[in-house]
Amino acid sequence: MENRQLEELGQQLRVDAVRAADAAQSGHPTSSMSAADLGAVLLAHHLRYDFDRPDHPGNDRLILSKGHASPLLYALYRAAGVIDDDELLTFRQDGSPLEGHPTPRLPWVDVATGSLGQGLPIGVGMALAGQRLDRLPYRVWVLCGDSEMAEGSIWEAAEHAAYERLDRLTLIVDVNRLGQRGPTREGWDLDAYARRLGAFGWHTIEIDGHDVAAIDAAYQEATAAQDRPTAVIARTHKGRGVAEVDDQEGFHGRPLPHPERAIEELGGVRSIRVDVARPPDPVLTTTAHAAGEIAAPRYRVGGETATRDAFGAALAALGSVRGDVVAVDGEVGDSTRTAAFAKAHPDRYFECYIAEQQLVAAAVGMRARGYLPFAATFAAFLTRAHDFIRMAAVSEAGIQLCGSHAGVAIGQDGPSQMGLEDIAMMRTVHGSTVLYPCDANQTARLVQHMAQLPGIGYLRTSRGAMPVLYGPDEDFPVGGCRVLRSSAADRVTVIGAGVTVHEALKAADLLAAESIWIRVIDLYSVKPVDAETLQEAADATDCLVTVEDHRPEGGIGDAVAEAFADGRPQPRLVRLAVRTMPASATPGQQLHHAGIDAESIAAAVRLLVGEVVVA
Amino acid sequence: MENRQLEELGQQLRVDAVRAADAAQSGHPTSSMSAADLGAVLLAHHLRYDFDRPDHPGNDRLILSKGHASPLLYALYRAAGVIDDDELLTFRQDGSPLEGHPTPRLPWVDVATGSLGQGLPIGVGMALAGQRLDRLPYRVWVLCGDSEMAEGSIWEAAEHAAYERLDRLTLIVDVNRLGQRGPTREGWDLDAYARRLGAFGWHTIEIDGHDVAAIDAAYQEATAAQDRPTAVIARTHKGRGVAEVDDQEGFHGRPLPHPERAIEELGGVRSIRVDVARPPDPVLTTTAHAAGEIAAPRYRVGGETATRDAFGAALAALGSVRGDVVAVDGEVGDSTRTAAFAKAHPDRYFECYIAEQQLVAAAVGMRARGYLPFAATFAAFLTRAHDFIRMAAVSEAGIQLCGSHAGVAIGQDGPSQMGLEDIAMMRTVHGSTVLYPCDANQTARLVQHMAQLPGIGYLRTSRGAMPVLYGPDEDFPVGGCRVLRSSAADRVTVIGAGVTVHEALKAADLLAAESIWIRVIDLYSVKPVDAETLQEAADATDCLVTVEDHRPEGGIGDAVAEAFADGRPQPRLVRLAVRTMPASATPGQQLHHAGIDAESIAAAVRLLVGEVVVA
Repeated sequence: MENRQLEELGQQLRVDAVRAADAAQSGHPTSSMSAADLGAVLLAHHLRYDFDRPDHPGNDRLILSKGHASPLLYALYRAAGVIDDDELLTFRQDGSPLEGHPTPRLPWVDVATGSLGQGLPIGVGMALAGQRLDRLPYRVWVLCGDSEMAEGSIWEAAEHAAYERLDRLTLIVDVNRLGQRGPTREGWDLDAYARRLGAFGWHTIEIDGHDVAAIDAAYQEATAAQDRPTAVIARTHKGRGVAEVDDQEGFHGRPLPHPERAIEELGGVRSIRVDVARPPDPVLTTTAHAAGEIAAPRYRVGGETATRDAFGAALAALGSVRGDVVAVDGEVGDSTRTAAFAKAHPDRYFECYIAEQQLVAAAVGMRARGYLPFAATFAAFLTRAHDFIRMAAVSEAGIQLCGSHAGVAIGQDGPSQMGLEDIAMMRTVHGSTVLYPCDANQTARLVQHMAQLPGIGYLRTSRGAMPVLYGPDEDFPVGGCRVLRSSAADRVTVIGAGVTVHEALKAADLLAAESIWIRVIDLYSVKPVDAETLQEAADATDCLVTVEDHRPEGGIGDAVAEAFADGRPQPRLVRLAVRTMPASATPGQQLHHAGIDAESIAAAVRLLVGEVVVA
Repeated sequence: MENRQLEELGQQLRVDAVRAADAAQSGHPTSSMSAADLGAVLLAHHLRYDFDRPDHPGNDRLILSKGHASPLLYALYRAAGVIDDDELLTFRQDGSPLEGHPTPRLPWVDVATGSLGQGLPIGVGMALAGQRLDRLPYRVWVLCGDSEMAEGSIWEAAEHAAYERLDRLTLIVDVNRLGQRGPTREGWDLDAYARRLGAFGWHTIEIDGHDVAAIDAAYQEATAAQDRPTAVIARTHKGRGVAEVDDQEGFHGRPLPHPERAIEELGGVRSIRVDVARPPDPVLTTTAHAAGEIAAPRYRVGGETATRDAFGAALAALGSVRGDVVAVDGEVGDSTRTAAFAKAHPDRYFECYIAEQQLVAAAVGMRARGYLPFAATFAAFLTRAHDFIRMAAVSEAGIQLCGSHAGVAIGQDGPSQMGLEDIAMMRTVHGSTVLYPCDANQTARLVQHMAQLPGIGYLRTSRGAMPVLYGPDEDFPVGGCRVLRSSAADRVTVIGAGVTVHEALKAADLLAAESIWIRVIDLYSVKPVDAETLQEAADATDCLVTVEDHRPEGGIGDAVAEAFADGRPQPRLVRLAVRTMPASATPGQQLHHAGIDAESIAAAVRLLVGEVVVA
């Protein structure tokens, strides 16, 4: 296209953004208008994308990190001929896939955006997949706003991208100088962004973001750059092209006050159709990532192994039979035991260093490219990535997470290192599965099941060695549980998972010596939960006691309570959980202080069978 | 001190770190040894701190961001004469305040560390307090490891500190080149850190971290710097001084293999006592922050107001009567309505831009300086700061948080902007209070109560206007609830909070027309919960139905279930909550699709009174 045509296309995108927001009576037209020329040149001259085949492995990827500028994205789709005018005007309406912020309900959207600062970290994951897994020359284009450059996740990604020399990644920063409530910190100081990205190792180009020739040249330069990612830092006007709102405060996130006049000012409605370039076809994909033959270890019943050790070994074994499995870690692979996977499959292991947002984002990006990522760090530090996990669910990205060092049972390191809130966090994630093994063979089997999960999976592992209870050929289906002690004389059911299963078994022995019989359930599948077996236990015993190395809120106690939250008659319930703020102590002391060790369980049961209410 | 004495002091700190870890048989001596000279020079020549008066307003602050190097901190305390040899050797033992990672159980520790990348953001909050609130010349010293420089939160803080020209903030980076599992990304490339910090606007100094004269000069230079923060970037050896571990991999987080030999190599046990310089006394504090007279607005029953509006107005009014109240926001003050506070009290308002980790960290830092910070952003984006909130509880920092735009009720913006997991997140925080008002007068009263809370408080506000139900003089104590509809004929109790209170009232009207009577409870205090009133409702009606604009896990349903989790006989419970992935739609459509509107509540009640189980 000639420059004049590109400018016309930019105006078309603006008009369509204005029209969409006007039809919806909400949305962010001015944030779309600033980036319209950046989008027009990208679509017309640089993006290589087969809109008829969004799953084409050679397609470039486009992430609209400033997801509120969704009208621009939808206007681009209209220009590409994949949505029509009627569909454009369904923007933000009930049932329309043209949501307020883009989601994969549209086939050309890989990941949901709208929580700012996530597009670049996820783009890094995609570009890493292109470089090291697919080995395909697609480019990843990320369009960011300037406000979101304040998010730390941007700088985690900037460092990761430069370190990995991701020269097929291009960041476009739409510096329109106005955030939601007024000027951004840096205003139009393009140098501020360039200095910082440059210091992290990026190639940077500063341009006028409304000069289509300059944009075209910058994208060309970005495409030609070798050995490092490029940032195109563009000075733009929010609301560009309509004098009433152009570079004015007070027009964020609302339709234009005079849309008809604005459309006229922008030259009226157009229907320029862009014939978007397609990637070369066919592309050669290298899928031969399966390597070696590492069998899952088998653990002897009665031995002792940490579930984190079993996780690492099982993950390495899974990687041997499935070439799509990859592992990412946050510089704690020696603790989470992803080191075993790194040793077996170094080509599919990604070190993210201590940057947990980037860790999860990289997994989301690789998942969007068709891989099955397992991302691991301490359970406590997964909270750092909570917003990314939340958004991964919106993105329908079935990543698998492992949080090690669960609970007070880690011992001396103290509360900063203890995962005590992670079950609650992971249970609230839409469509998630939460697994918490107590034994090495169980862990190995659950890792195999995680590879089949449709949504986000979470495995909670423990630091210390625990007895092996189950044989290596036993299965542990997701949604099941194990009844470990049971008799007709059971008066109370004790439900544990992980370390508390072993405490419950010890408590059962203590109580048996007093002729008090209890049922013991290993609730290894915390979500979904085995409501049927819990109902049987409720029918057979007076009370269900949950025991968890976790806060009393949102964890195993809640999972059991929710199983009865359908109006059926309820059993009596008691929750033993960590209600104190732990300090340094040995693992055994910790469990005792928290009131979740065998003695505490036995004491609670004695009270209950005496019909005394535990206060 | 002479340089030779400083070197001797450094060796003493190393020896003490080795001894403490050996006594504990765990801990991080090598990470302490790399920073020993940095610590020695700071204590002997630069820190101004009255150890007898940790609350002295003029004291410098020292944050050990690399909290695992706690043996170094405790060795410094021994050198300062405030702990003795016996106490040093209680390191990591049950009951000792010398925890694996520092916590405020020790009077000289302001904030807990151990989750990496948090010290600098919190230090920024303290330095902001010094500059703009206390107006005192104390310095804030933050000692970081090199691994944690990969955390995005460091760069949020770097930007904030430079922008605010915090020249009394000094970051010391202990570049020992070895992380937990091997080399860091940047190794000994001091320039890499200097380039980046420089690009963010910092003054940087690169030194040999074992040259006490160079350290001394660097601290001097940092102290003299004007208008910008300084980073002292020091090349060090992990395990410095003991050949067996000096700059060697494989010795992270474990006692030295041959402690006696190591102590000998380091020159044996010493007892150098440092007479730490004290701040000038008395200092003049300016506490006259109370300004203006803004009375809390009173809302007319039957009118309509958004709870976020009421929050902003109430916060501004609170600021008028309490000079210690400050507000921080993440560039969404026009949405959260902290803008009302900013307008009334600009000197106590802090704009953190879109950097939620820094937002919460700034609040923690100011709380540690004695202020009462309210930090606000969208409820959804508070998940970004989950790890900081978790650690704030370990720090015993009673910050107050407000999350706006709760739930699907926000409407068209879609799931990325909806807080649907925030109640679960905030309930798990140790010692937290979770409040969720449904009306403007209630909001105003709850904001007043938040100012009295001992721990972390959370207020969940809503975007849209809602009817005013309560008069302006009614009180809403924390831990209470309100019974809005009640009769002897009630068959079911419906428990809502926020927007669902209004839906429950509408459902009651619908059902009353069918002569089905229900009790309606406004559970504005989600934690602690009013167990007594819930028990009365359970005694009086057949079933309790919770209705919440939140995921079914960990929220109001769990809060009600937990009230009965002490072994008492349980009522039947039903949870109505958001079980779908929402898309764009109007607020009314959203509530309906999620099954939490009046019609859905009425339908559930009809099923329940027909004794049909809701599947």
